[in-house]
Amino acid sequence: MAFKFAKRMERLQSSEVRELLKLTQKPEIISFAGGLPAPELFPVEELRLVADELLKQEGRQLLQYATTEGRPTLRKKVADRMKAKYYTNVSADEILITTGSQQCLDFAGKLFLDPGDVVLCESPSYLGALNAFAAYEPRFVEVPTDNGGLIPEELDKILATTERCKFIYVIPDFQNPTGRTWSMERREKFMEVVNKYELPVLEDNPYGELRFEGEIFPSLKSMDTKGLVMFLGTFSKIFCPGLRLGWVAAEPDVLSEFIKIKQSADLHTSNFDQALADVYMDKYDMDVHVEKIKDLYRHRRDLIIDSLEKFMPSDVEWTHPAGGLFLWLTFPSGVSAAKVFAKCIEKNVAGVTGDAFFPNGKTDKNMRINYSNMPDEKIVEGIKRMAEAIKELV
Amino acid sequence: MAFKFAKRMERLQSSEVRELLKLTQKPEIISFAGGLPAPELFPVEELRLVADELLKQEGRQLLQYATTEGRPTLRKKVADRMKAKYYTNVSADEILITTGSQQCLDFAGKLFLDPGDVVLCESPSYLGALNAFAAYEPRFVEVPTDNGGLIPEELDKILATTERCKFIYVIPDFQNPTGRTWSMERREKFMEVVNKYELPVLEDNPYGELRFEGEIFPSLKSMDTKGLVMFLGTFSKIFCPGLRLGWVAAEPDVLSEFIKIKQSADLHTSNFDQALADVYMDKYDMDVHVEKIKDLYRHRRDLIIDSLEKFMPSDVEWTHPAGGLFLWLTFPSGVSAAKVFAKCIEKNVAGVTGDAFFPNGKTDKNMRINYSNMPDEKIVEGIKRMAEAIKELV
Repeated sequence: MAFKFAKRMERLQSSEVRELLKLTQKPEIISFAGGLPAPELFPVEELRLVADELLKQEGRQLLQYATTEGRPTLRKKVADRMKAKYYTNVSADEILITTGSQQCLDFAGKLFLDPGDVVLCESPSYLGALNAFAAYEPRFVEVPTDNGGLIPEELDKILATTERCKFIYVIPDFQNPTGRTWSMERREKFMEVVNKYELPVLEDNPYGELRFEGEIFPSLKSMDTKGLVMFLGTFSKIFCPGLRLGWVAAEPDVLSEFIKIKQSADLHTSNFDQALADVYMDKYDMDVHVEKIKDLYRHRRDLIIDSLEKFMPSDVEWTHPAGGLFLWLTFPSGVSAAKVFAKCIEKNVAGVTGDAFFPNGKTDKNMRINYSNMPDEKIVEGIKRMAEAIKELV
Repeated sequence: MAFKFAKRMERLQSSEVRELLKLTQKPEIISFAGGLPAPELFPVEELRLVADELLKQEGRQLLQYATTEGRPTLRKKVADRMKAKYYTNVSADEILITTGSQQCLDFAGKLFLDPGDVVLCESPSYLGALNAFAAYEPRFVEVPTDNGGLIPEELDKILATTERCKFIYVIPDFQNPTGRTWSMERREKFMEVVNKYELPVLEDNPYGELRFEGEIFPSLKSMDTKGLVMFLGTFSKIFCPGLRLGWVAAEPDVLSEFIKIKQSADLHTSNFDQALADVYMDKYDMDVHVEKIKDLYRHRRDLIIDSLEKFMPSDVEWTHPAGGLFLWLTFPSGVSAAKVFAKCIEKNVAGVTGDAFFPNGKTDKNMRINYSNMPDEKIVEGIKRMAEAIKELV
């Protein structure tokens, strides 16, 4: 029986990409392909104690249906943490707890997009977001970027001549896939431009707290005077991803629409998982935990940059992330990323080819490299093998 | 700043309905309005032991990202349980674990519906499903029902003359909102009709195991010879809803589309929550637990029927559910359900007015009554007050 599916299904990620990703998951592979946090830092023992206490003290409420908006004390903690880290002035009432921040991406598409509407994004941008939006059949317009992030003047030009722009999706801090961070000057310019056109902004900030040096820049949300910015956050990178806990912070009129969507999508996020994060933060110092993550990832970032410098041919380029989980390789002209990927798989090492991160134009010269999940010896060995693969192709 | 939202947002449940529901949640109200399971039966202590063991034995994997399809051993248990209870022949590979079965409803809308496509449903049908589908801008066509459930001959007539029918949504067992169950004869006739038109079927079965007397009828899925039926299940009513665990069982070609949607919607369902249900079923007998739930709900069903017989005016009618959580009141002509609702709120008792369960036609003569969540004395007192409210309006 061949079912007749909705048109949008033609737009969802092809099984081809999924098949490629499966290649990177074989146990013998040194994988820089995923975006997995380091599991050795998950607060397993602390969560065991928290779970025990929670089930003793409020088991029945934990296991019952709950409000769509989320656990009140967790919403409050999220608002407070956003203020402390990202200089926002958001109240608990402006937070919706979601099933990971991936769910916020889906909801934003659902909230804003009729078929043919325009989504603006950095070029390149996060694959999972592009895929979530694609289900709502938009047209993507890519805004040029350089090593300083999105170029606001280019955005201005695009907005002056493009109809049906519904929102712009950006990751200003340690971007996925490039690892780049926008400067203060870029942030200010960007806000001028979006204010001029009153363009809604989806600010995705999964990695902001994981800054290895210097101070966290103010979030776009903290600079927003017109209620244009929706801020997406997650516990996946500072705590653990298996619980699926994220949030969106938005103006009340916008948040109420997100809440309606949430109700029809899955009623509410796991009540037990929300309580685990909430009570963990009562009993333990999340800042101390985040420092441990930063120390480890800083070390791994340093090691991978050292290894790149040591092994890579001199005409391969890479970004130098000041935080987060990823860096971005650019191969010299004549070297195909697809061929590097295939050669790497032969050598049991993997990154993700860059083309998937560009919604329109096809490119064949980049690779995204994750450095948060592999131990030291595998980082060195993996980059060595990858360099050999490239050398064999030149 | 007034944002321009997608057209679909006009179709999502109005804040008016949400405001009405809030009235029913005041602590002084005896509420038959929700669909909450009895929390006193949640296996709190058992889950405390399971959580403790899980975090000791596989903490890091539990808290890491996981596969979109779901925990393999849980998928296997779900397939086995479906076979034992609903006579299906579904393998673990045909199961996708979701964030509650509400998420399956959203996904089915996303998978099948372009704006203007037709969703068929029982008249009346589950409000939360109608709302999930509405986000994809379909036209609803209601199939007439009687005390035996959906009338297959009426469905045949509709399908003969209606274009763009994408699927039919049905709840054959202890339907929400009416509590009705389809007879074997109706099931067979129904499958004949959908086979004739090759119409995809969304069979929602949240309550099937909660049968108070007699045997569970075979599911539509078990009678499906053409791969037309997608079966939706949930742990919310036989275990606990706070963990948000449901599933869809479908043919591989259809399931692979659900999996793509799941990946873009929230990556995967909480890994920890999946493991809790999975290992609970290793260590304890779910059938024994379900028997306890059935005993309690049977008792409450008997008590509420007794109270209705004792207190209600003779021209009020109600269904006699053989399982599940709900029954359905029909008021005599001249008595407005909206007015009964308002009068009931004055008397601190609540049901849900029936009109929300009809996607098109407005009715004003029904009320849905939940009997799973209130203790004995409140059931009796609540029905007494409701009867008084009706008498004051006649």
